[in-house]
Amino acid sequence: MLFHSGSEPQAVPVKAERLHFSEPLELAGGGSFLGYELVYESYGRLNAERSNAILICHALNASHHVAGLNEEGELGWWDNMVGPGKPIDTERFFVIGVNNLGSCFGSTGPMSINPSTGKPWGPDFPVLTVEDWVHAQARLADRLGIVRFAAVMGGSLGGMQALAWSLLYPQRLAHCICIASTAKLSAQNIAFNEVARRAIITDPEFHGGRFYEAGVLPRRGLQVARMIGHITYLSDDVMAERFGRLLRGREAGEAYRYTYDIEFEIESYLRYQGEKFAGYFDANTYLIITRALDYFDPARAFGGDLSKALAQARCRFLVASFTTDWRFSPECSREIVQALLACDLEVSYAEINAPHGHDAFLLDNPQYHQLLRAYAQRMASNLGLAA
Amino acid sequence: MLFHSGSEPQAVPVKAERLHFSEPLELAGGGSFLGYELVYESYGRLNAERSNAILICHALNASHHVAGLNEEGELGWWDNMVGPGKPIDTERFFVIGVNNLGSCFGSTGPMSINPSTGKPWGPDFPVLTVEDWVHAQARLADRLGIVRFAAVMGGSLGGMQALAWSLLYPQRLAHCICIASTAKLSAQNIAFNEVARRAIITDPEFHGGRFYEAGVLPRRGLQVARMIGHITYLSDDVMAERFGRLLRGREAGEAYRYTYDIEFEIESYLRYQGEKFAGYFDANTYLIITRALDYFDPARAFGGDLSKALAQARCRFLVASFTTDWRFSPECSREIVQALLACDLEVSYAEINAPHGHDAFLLDNPQYHQLLRAYAQRMASNLGLAA
Repeated sequence: MLFHSGSEPQAVPVKAERLHFSEPLELAGGGSFLGYELVYESYGRLNAERSNAILICHALNASHHVAGLNEEGELGWWDNMVGPGKPIDTERFFVIGVNNLGSCFGSTGPMSINPSTGKPWGPDFPVLTVEDWVHAQARLADRLGIVRFAAVMGGSLGGMQALAWSLLYPQRLAHCICIASTAKLSAQNIAFNEVARRAIITDPEFHGGRFYEAGVLPRRGLQVARMIGHITYLSDDVMAERFGRLLRGREAGEAYRYTYDIEFEIESYLRYQGEKFAGYFDANTYLIITRALDYFDPARAFGGDLSKALAQARCRFLVASFTTDWRFSPECSREIVQALLACDLEVSYAEINAPHGHDAFLLDNPQYHQLLRAYAQRMASNLGLAA
Repeated sequence: MLFHSGSEPQAVPVKAERLHFSEPLELAGGGSFLGYELVYESYGRLNAERSNAILICHALNASHHVAGLNEEGELGWWDNMVGPGKPIDTERFFVIGVNNLGSCFGSTGPMSINPSTGKPWGPDFPVLTVEDWVHAQARLADRLGIVRFAAVMGGSLGGMQALAWSLLYPQRLAHCICIASTAKLSAQNIAFNEVARRAIITDPEFHGGRFYEAGVLPRRGLQVARMIGHITYLSDDVMAERFGRLLRGREAGEAYRYTYDIEFEIESYLRYQGEKFAGYFDANTYLIITRALDYFDPARAFGGDLSKALAQARCRFLVASFTTDWRFSPECSREIVQALLACDLEVSYAEINAPHGHDAFLLDNPQYHQLLRAYAQRMASNLGLAA
């Protein structure tokens, strides 16, 4: 355990757990998936009533490692939100982070061995949906003995899973916390996903998804995909403020180098992000997750009427958006809120003033964290949890 | 010549001309370019006073073929704007469209033979700037005997060239018409260009820019580059309206196919655009033009003070932007207008209500065309041109 000298909360060491599921999982795309493993972490203690559990669902490039310090010495992706004394206080709540099926961070995914061939699944791994993930998460809850979550929460794609929980298992959550998310992708959102997928699929080293066997990686495609994604995570404003037209390694007045290599700071930053990502993320997983994003549209089965879809829900909702998020803009969250209100469901909504764009949901914004802290306290008192 | 039965103006046949320039062209990036050709078209007649010439500068993927019907039977990219009886009326004005140096549509560019090697220039073609193009265009004007243009005009990158004309040759234009443009790219703009370039440069078939010799084309990179560009040309709204979440070849209620191949209409559209572009556009030209966009920043030599830069201008200005353009938003145009006003220069500004995003500058919007028609008429009377 690491100790800090200041008042900063100490990072809690955490160890991932792994569970095997042998019952077939029926998939939205047809067929069923047989025999898979889910990796998860948990923080805090489940109370005797089993009423203090919060499930945290991850977004595109995250994992079960939500909080604390794992064995590799890495801090969880939402460690500023979840932990002792933090907005989601693990001294009060039992928090679970789960790695979704199809991911590349430990749960069964395209890199895993397909028992029927003895080779990695690769492109034969089934196309998955947000709903498939939720069903798999519900089984994890069963195994952990959690009948009803105090909350299911997530940001971005994680928020979609929280929303899907409220519709697929209305009795199994008291609260749905849906942050920087949307009830469906726009044509522009799908377009960005499609370009990213094309970059990967057309990389000659993708080998139709069987690159593991070829002993190569479609690095170039993954880099481009990540660079595109990254642009959409940041606001125009924050890019202007952090990078503007700064030249890499040059003073303001110095001459251009007149090159197609790195000239501007923003180029250096994006390339770095792209290369880092290509080093740890699986290309087939990228396809699976972006496609799950594209397909999410709970209103679709109700002729496009979102309030009809949300009428299945029974929990209370917290919906939050960020003013400069242009990937899933406040308008997307307002659409959810209006549909919930049309169903007479209880919903709190906050539009948080933040310059950081979509990424804001991961950052330590005082207004945002205060909102979550207050909401979690209200949840605790609603649920009769000890202070 | 094609004749239409209705009241629609007939398409005018046009033939491209070619001029050779032997005097070295000094380049912003250092060195000079020796011996090049520029291809151009012209429409209407130069009057005896040589006072009715308008130069039209092209944007990223366009050419000298601005208006009329060329020998390949293709209509010019701004044929709705330029022609007999059109907003830029060729019965009154003598209009010139020029293909820029470094392009792939006829003027000397990376596909041309480098006389010192006997092979295509490829990556050895110099990095160019908007200012380099303007200097080359000024020589074309010299050869055509045009001392002073009635106007230099363009949209997007073409607008940057018009702006640069007003600063580099202040005495050689009476009017600068700058549409859907900007005085400098933002970090986000540069970021999109950089991703597009990375897609091209990392395509194994790019061969460091020497793909001509390898007998291949970096089609995959060009496709991805074009798809990214295309997303930024369209507004979120127009994408939603034209494509939304429509499935390709399926009715609204039909099931998803659960595939990484084309599922949504927007995917089909973008792939088609990408493939078409890869079939006709040169990859090295794409690098040259996007880099010229990145580098354009006339305020840079004045410590970032745009009004100091624009103080060199002597002409009148028309600046126009489109409400839903998020590539070069109205704010970019307003910045130009405010800097011009700070210099006591005469400027008309219009923010045109159009749903189409950046592409609006190419489209036949009545409010927009009426504005250009009225401005051109005012120019004509200012310049004492016969009606």
